[in-house]
Amino acid sequence: MPYRESLLLTDLYQLAMLQAYADHGLAGTAVFEFFVRKLPPRRGFLMAAGLEQALEFLETAQFGEEDRAALRRMGQFPASFVESLAGFRFAGDVDALPEGTVFFPDEPVLRVVAPLPQAQLVETRLINLVHFETVVASKAARMVLAAPGKELVDFGLRRAHGAEAGLLAARASHIAGFAGTATLEAALRFGMPAYGTMAHSFIQAHDDETSAFEHFARSRPKGVVLLIDTYDTERAAEKVAALAKRLARDGISIRGVRIDSGDLAAHARRVRAILDAHGLDDITIFASGGLDEDALAAHTRDGVPIDGYGIGTSLTTAADAPALDCAYKIQEYDGVPRRKRSEGKATWPGRKQVWRRATPAGRFAGDTLGLTTENHAGEPLLRPVMRAGRRLGPPPSLAEIRAHAAEQLRHLPEALRRLEPMTYPVTVSEALRALAEECDRRVAAADR
Amino acid sequence: MPYRESLLLTDLYQLAMLQAYADHGLAGTAVFEFFVRKLPPRRGFLMAAGLEQALEFLETAQFGEEDRAALRRMGQFPASFVESLAGFRFAGDVDALPEGTVFFPDEPVLRVVAPLPQAQLVETRLINLVHFETVVASKAARMVLAAPGKELVDFGLRRAHGAEAGLLAARASHIAGFAGTATLEAALRFGMPAYGTMAHSFIQAHDDETSAFEHFARSRPKGVVLLIDTYDTERAAEKVAALAKRLARDGISIRGVRIDSGDLAAHARRVRAILDAHGLDDITIFASGGLDEDALAAHTRDGVPIDGYGIGTSLTTAADAPALDCAYKIQEYDGVPRRKRSEGKATWPGRKQVWRRATPAGRFAGDTLGLTTENHAGEPLLRPVMRAGRRLGPPPSLAEIRAHAAEQLRHLPEALRRLEPMTYPVTVSEALRALAEECDRRVAAADR
Repeated sequence: MPYRESLLLTDLYQLAMLQAYADHGLAGTAVFEFFVRKLPPRRGFLMAAGLEQALEFLETAQFGEEDRAALRRMGQFPASFVESLAGFRFAGDVDALPEGTVFFPDEPVLRVVAPLPQAQLVETRLINLVHFETVVASKAARMVLAAPGKELVDFGLRRAHGAEAGLLAARASHIAGFAGTATLEAALRFGMPAYGTMAHSFIQAHDDETSAFEHFARSRPKGVVLLIDTYDTERAAEKVAALAKRLARDGISIRGVRIDSGDLAAHARRVRAILDAHGLDDITIFASGGLDEDALAAHTRDGVPIDGYGIGTSLTTAADAPALDCAYKIQEYDGVPRRKRSEGKATWPGRKQVWRRATPAGRFAGDTLGLTTENHAGEPLLRPVMRAGRRLGPPPSLAEIRAHAAEQLRHLPEALRRLEPMTYPVTVSEALRALAEECDRRVAAADR
Repeated sequence: MPYRESLLLTDLYQLAMLQAYADHGLAGTAVFEFFVRKLPPRRGFLMAAGLEQALEFLETAQFGEEDRAALRRMGQFPASFVESLAGFRFAGDVDALPEGTVFFPDEPVLRVVAPLPQAQLVETRLINLVHFETVVASKAARMVLAAPGKELVDFGLRRAHGAEAGLLAARASHIAGFAGTATLEAALRFGMPAYGTMAHSFIQAHDDETSAFEHFARSRPKGVVLLIDTYDTERAAEKVAALAKRLARDGISIRGVRIDSGDLAAHARRVRAILDAHGLDDITIFASGGLDEDALAAHTRDGVPIDGYGIGTSLTTAADAPALDCAYKIQEYDGVPRRKRSEGKATWPGRKQVWRRATPAGRFAGDTLGLTTENHAGEPLLRPVMRAGRRLGPPPSLAEIRAHAAEQLRHLPEALRRLEPMTYPVTVSEALRALAEECDRRVAAADR
């Protein structure tokens, strides 16, 4: 389904509010922040991702002639309002956590400062982009921590939620430490390594398995990964061993075998023994099929001889936590800090910063959430990335983002690196608490 | 992020296999079927969706000059192979369940009959489209059954997994019985009703709540839905009541109020009482915020006075089951039925049909899974939809698909309409069992 980035990819109410803002002259400066309210079960931290796509969206977002024609046909908005949208551009400022940064609940991931209508209209798509990549990077980071030294590859496109999800999941998992992706377009678009093996159908289209293996290896002589579980995994491993020796004479190498079903650990041990018995210890074992971070951790603990993993569904859908309780909320309007008090959804008002302290060894020791006007111990994490609608300098490369993410994971406290993590200490500053109380008093006074 | 439908949106291995098929002359006719292996927990049935997008993809899929240039730059494929892709078109046949049809494990949702390379290459994107819409339609159907007579609206774009997920989820939930979507572009693209209320930020940008309500209502005088939980839900309901009477004099109507936090049932009861006490029983109550089918069922059971629901995250991510254990598997090649025997993933070979029997009252009574060459009692469910790469006739309208889905839900056995359903009987025909055994014998013989 073709998709052209358009501001119509938003909630209807954003346009309704835009119209009302215009009618009533509400065009003052607004401050919105995107943050996560609480962690999903079993998560000790999150990893920020999606900023690059969010900034690209803000820089290019507009209502094209086609969009305005569609709105006119829809007939829900006055013609003059629809025409006024022709001039819409995002001209605000953005501060954000660099992609790959670890963060915790209530900490702003991204702050937008812009005229109210601009800051409002971009809400839906900003959340849509930053939320999803953060969901996947955070899930992928758990897998990376659970399988140290293993080659992890994104196999998730087929069960990702649509085209964009497949592409963005490849990028987000690579940021978190995945080696690459099976998704060709993601590899080409983001400049990431592409990985591929073969499917069962290739084997099944042949009358015998050895011919299938040989055909595939002869077509891709620089090192293929052969799928060995279509009929009988260990028998197929024996066939691979025999074939590998025969093909070696023609200069054709077999890089590895893939096991996709059954008890992966048990099969891997038997297959490793078969290959080693033939002196083929350079043929690696790759596993796939319903894997998640718990399976990876169990294999790591048990020393299972698997060299790499293809991970699909649990990664790209973040199956145990496919969404975060996140929000993009107004924190200040026209110079006045604002706070919503809805039950269970109260927010911290004002423009905020996060300061992160470290142990002498460099491990994260605790964060302070305070106002940008304050000063606290530690490193301030949000940085300016856009001013007046233009990015400040070229974006970091994917390799740079990946290196930053890897450093973040290295600096995590040990208790956060586990799959059943501890809670990380985030302190709310006195000044921020005082401001929240002041907001509540002001709203109460307006009500009297 | 712009997205142009391209055959590069696939797994790298599809192209590797295509190259090997070309090298070794494997271009015979292949039969692939898409099916679900087993139901997620608590699901008694699934609802097919996504066929329209799948057929559109098959009709238009090709490698453009840009795609081939990207492949050339990538350097993993021989130049002659890349050039041969210029001529790629899908020219196969497709039979499928009409969208909105209820189905069960092992039943083919879609069958492709095409030259092997064509049937193979389209695998990833076909699954990507049909899987996701089916996931959402199936989840939405549970919500529709849990909230009879209520107006359900898709609020899920912001936490959907990217742009396409948001659009397709709007469509799939509408098929299953949702009234419409908050996603403007989905409404325009698919011709569905668009719904919208207002956000907390609109309220917060004003110094007092009543001014915010009045500004919004005056800009959208044909009936707005006002959000009343920003500070104190019941006080806001009183403000709405006073405002409604004042605005009525100017011919401005308030259609409803929305509650988005706290104990929705308790608030709804108190708000209903407040509105009714003011004689405003035509103002409806709309609820949102973390709702799923269990919350809807509880409200239905308790007679909570909520008229409509905005449902976001749990719908668009299908939070409790964001993916199905599904596959697109080769069932026949070059006239020979094929079967994979991988542990826990064995498939039924051959071209299959599903026959559905009904009780005298029209309720579904049981299905038979058999070969297309057989005849069984009941209605055959898969129908021809594409021949030689061209759709047979114009696609059904969204309204027709919706009507078919509603009829399917009406004909579900009572035990399947519950949130904790029974298992529906699907019988595998004798002929199909015999064919599976024959496939196993043939593979075993080839191994000797």
